[in-house]
Amino acid sequence: MPNFVFIGASIDGYIADRNNKLDFLECIPNPENVDFGFQDFMQSVDCVIMGRNTFETILGVGGEWHYSKPVFVLSSSLTSVPDKLKDNVEIMQGEINDIITALNKRGFSRLYIDGANVIQSFLKKDIIDEVIISTVPMLLGGGTKLFGMLPAHLSFEHMETQVLLNALVQTRYKRKKE
Amino acid sequence: MPNFVFIGASIDGYIADRNNKLDFLECIPNPENVDFGFQDFMQSVDCVIMGRNTFETILGVGGEWHYSKPVFVLSSSLTSVPDKLKDNVEIMQGEINDIITALNKRGFSRLYIDGANVIQSFLKKDIIDEVIISTVPMLLGGGTKLFGMLPAHLSFEHMETQVLLNALVQTRYKRKKE
Repeated sequence: MPNFVFIGASIDGYIADRNNKLDFLECIPNPENVDFGFQDFMQSVDCVIMGRNTFETILGVGGEWHYSKPVFVLSSSLTSVPDKLKDNVEIMQGEINDIITALNKRGFSRLYIDGANVIQSFLKKDIIDEVIISTVPMLLGGGTKLFGMLPAHLSFEHMETQVLLNALVQTRYKRKKE
Repeated sequence: MPNFVFIGASIDGYIADRNNKLDFLECIPNPENVDFGFQDFMQSVDCVIMGRNTFETILGVGGEWHYSKPVFVLSSSLTSVPDKLKDNVEIMQGEINDIITALNKRGFSRLYIDGANVIQSFLKKDIIDEVIISTVPMLLGGGTKLFGMLPAHLSFEHMETQVLLNALVQTRYKRKKE
């Protein structure tokens, strides 16, 4: 039951800027709309888990809904989702381990973990198995940090690195447990 | 008069752990003592600038002094350096711009900027020209952060990326001014 992260970050580890905007992800000219492996990755997972902040940030960006798998939003305060997303998005609340168990029982075993809060919660419990980070060549100097404090060091195995659009460095890491 | 950064960091952007130790930099088996391009880089600069914290951290690691160029330690509190380093290390104090001017006048034009505090001060003034980061496949979850807050976004050009020892991702960035 592996849990995956697939995310873009600045060199200094921010995934949104000070105004909660994701514009920096678009700073690289991308005339052919290279998708950085996102659709292939999306095909490989069963569902997406994110927190309310991330959900609202993505809604704020507008445009097409780009998650082709069911999305579960962890929130104790959110009570409904926009009508057009009713078939795509479900709100869940509770302890992370219980949520994972519930999702696994429903047949969702490969989970895409998205957004800083949820990723950090999963890392604190050491239940992230694979991380794919695309580093955008920019220092934001403030905003939403991808990583937070951890109770212990976590070692990863370097799986592969590729440079995309001559600008983004995309690296895939696998958790290495001794 | 370019200013350079050459540094190792964890995936989550720490350059020393919570105990101010650099052990994580040695976590990758390196039987042939690959130097990650450090000596070539060192040959390319004229001197090193670091803060007191970094200087004392490096002294604390012990072993051979690995800077082959003059080192200038920026400190208002340090008054002397260990006898064995008297020929290698000089203490300086004052405003960064004045220090750079003084060093440039003395013939040091290619400066290697080392340590979190000094790197962050230089970045705040937007006077870092090139950054070479070697990312160690580990989350430290706490310690000394390489990057800090900035008054504005800074864009960089991706120059090259190589994977070293099948584990470290070393990327060279050049500051891109619009």
